[in-house]
Amino acid sequence: MKHQPTNMNVYVTGVATTKFGELWDVSPRQLARQAVQAAMKDAGVHPEHIKGLFVGNMLSGMLGGQEHLGAFFSEELELFVPASKIEGACASGGLAVHAAFNSIRSGQYDTVVVLGIEKMTDHRPEDVATALMGAGSEEERAAGATFPGLYAMLARAHMRAFGTTEEDMAAVAVKNHFHAGKNQNAQFQKEITIEQVMHSSRIADPLKLLDCSPISDGAAAVVLTSQKSKIKNQKFVEVAASAVATDTLGLAQRKSLTELSATKRAGEQAYTMAGVRPKDIHVAEVHDCFTIAEILALEDLQFAKKGKAAEAIRNGEVTLGRAKHIVINPSGGLKGCGHPVGATGVKQIAEITEQLRGTAGNRQVARARIGLAHNVGGSGATAVVHILKM
Amino acid sequence: MKHQPTNMNVYVTGVATTKFGELWDVSPRQLARQAVQAAMKDAGVHPEHIKGLFVGNMLSGMLGGQEHLGAFFSEELELFVPASKIEGACASGGLAVHAAFNSIRSGQYDTVVVLGIEKMTDHRPEDVATALMGAGSEEERAAGATFPGLYAMLARAHMRAFGTTEEDMAAVAVKNHFHAGKNQNAQFQKEITIEQVMHSSRIADPLKLLDCSPISDGAAAVVLTSQKSKIKNQKFVEVAASAVATDTLGLAQRKSLTELSATKRAGEQAYTMAGVRPKDIHVAEVHDCFTIAEILALEDLQFAKKGKAAEAIRNGEVTLGRAKHIVINPSGGLKGCGHPVGATGVKQIAEITEQLRGTAGNRQVARARIGLAHNVGGSGATAVVHILKM
Repeated sequence: MKHQPTNMNVYVTGVATTKFGELWDVSPRQLARQAVQAAMKDAGVHPEHIKGLFVGNMLSGMLGGQEHLGAFFSEELELFVPASKIEGACASGGLAVHAAFNSIRSGQYDTVVVLGIEKMTDHRPEDVATALMGAGSEEERAAGATFPGLYAMLARAHMRAFGTTEEDMAAVAVKNHFHAGKNQNAQFQKEITIEQVMHSSRIADPLKLLDCSPISDGAAAVVLTSQKSKIKNQKFVEVAASAVATDTLGLAQRKSLTELSATKRAGEQAYTMAGVRPKDIHVAEVHDCFTIAEILALEDLQFAKKGKAAEAIRNGEVTLGRAKHIVINPSGGLKGCGHPVGATGVKQIAEITEQLRGTAGNRQVARARIGLAHNVGGSGATAVVHILKM
Repeated sequence: MKHQPTNMNVYVTGVATTKFGELWDVSPRQLARQAVQAAMKDAGVHPEHIKGLFVGNMLSGMLGGQEHLGAFFSEELELFVPASKIEGACASGGLAVHAAFNSIRSGQYDTVVVLGIEKMTDHRPEDVATALMGAGSEEERAAGATFPGLYAMLARAHMRAFGTTEEDMAAVAVKNHFHAGKNQNAQFQKEITIEQVMHSSRIADPLKLLDCSPISDGAAAVVLTSQKSKIKNQKFVEVAASAVATDTLGLAQRKSLTELSATKRAGEQAYTMAGVRPKDIHVAEVHDCFTIAEILALEDLQFAKKGKAAEAIRNGEVTLGRAKHIVINPSGGLKGCGHPVGATGVKQIAEITEQLRGTAGNRQVARARIGLAHNVGGSGATAVVHILKM
């Protein structure tokens, strides 16, 4: 895909993430207000600066019967700006950022808000599981597959091809819980051990409870702008690349089960757009909906050689305080920070922005100047990669 | 909203619409294939030309449990390109065109397909009615309101303020059925009379059955490009403006019930972007989900003075073969052609393109060179206006 550059650079100028978790006493309206008002305050912008709203959400229609979330939140936030909802399963947040990025570069809007939001815990778990399968193929749905089962197949294929072990996958969960403990908005604040992961209930063999990201509520918001000169805030992080790729919905139609081809292609395109190489990235938020997914992401994004990601993770090479080149999922990732589906892709941009600004507190990655966010829909049918530069 | 022009013009270069109606023997996959393959053939482009896919759909998640339609149709159409679903209730199709337009002008993609699609008749009517209320406010949903009821309130307000009569509204249905009779893809092929409308069942007083657009299946696709020189097809229609505005979801929160403020604002912005006046428009597809909605649209888009649209319609001033300045809804509109929700906004672009090319057959508007498409979500919370030029 050839990219024709325009002169319109896009910057992240304000970010915010709410607490992620089981937020029984908070409504979607309150979550949206918290995230957007904090992001606008962070950006130093007022409602009159905002020219467009992009909402990333997957489940509101299926679980709550409420669609039309663009106008819904535009009203709730008293913005009354052009608004739309973007959906691509668990990649809805990343796709919303992509749409917002395009809208600014096109000259259509100069400053916009992207809101990612999901409220999952108000519904029966079986309804949530059924709704989430709205991201899978018709055949998978008909067969009664669930996402833990689908990712378990990916795990089995990776174990067979590269000798990856259950302990290797457990190491992803241990690392991401360790990171999450440094993030006050994370759903899980407790460190766990390899043994605890290994002894947790088997959900879809070889994946156990502590290999799986949780069901979460939460929202994240980012303010994007091309108007560097008009906004007083000096905290601008450039969006150097925004790339999307798709693959088959179902696993059965894929050529390989030991990689997510959409991630590879979105990553390659993003590196080209940004003019950087994988080894130039200092910090990345990748889509670890299950522990095996982080292993796949590190390989598909070329942070590790094929079959070598597990070793790098196990050896602490991507852990805060121990990493040499790159830290993966300092926020705690989906596993530790939580995974309110539509919010995740936006939260990743917020986290990378904080890291590049140097405002990530006690989970700060030292000298991070280039970061990457990687958001996946379904079992890899959609992948979105953003690269941010300070 | 200030528009900052880029050098990237966007053209419609291929369009197609499937039959609209109760398509019991056709699946969503088949509808999508029919529309997209025909639009690509019309454009003279091959799959390798297509760099992005934008899907407009509202109800697939709520009615069929299938979300993730970007990747779903990208796979079904064997495109495997960056893809996303855009949702904004009945304005989903228009919003998908808007997102596609922005993506091209940004330089991100050079040639894309927009697919609008909805399959409504496979489901119980009460489920469809409930799902459609996903476009309304929480209060309206809690009160058990339906869209015929909400538009009935708008009709009553207009009748009280301007003396609009039930016969005036009936004239919209009569005109649009007359137009639909010239459109082989239209759901209704039969002319109706004022008397038939007046004697049809009362749905939500003063709206009767024949004041309401039907429940429909159907798909429409358009190919948009910036690559005029690379595509052999000589049938380029320029997208001169793409504008969106939002309002409150619920009617109770509006300042006025005799206009849709979002339509007015999107229209004004589109006229500014395109550098044209309302009187320059030769043909328009407007969102007549109920007959009163066409009356409101004509006034809000400044094709008629406030309170005067009904008279213009009744006098045949916007009817094919009788119009002086502008023909409204030559396709038959939502009322006559049908209203597969997510498809409607894309079908409108397809119809205006055919009209400007001079390929609209026996419903051709003479000497049409500038056209407008107007798509509404809910009872006016979202409005999308596109202006096309030959």
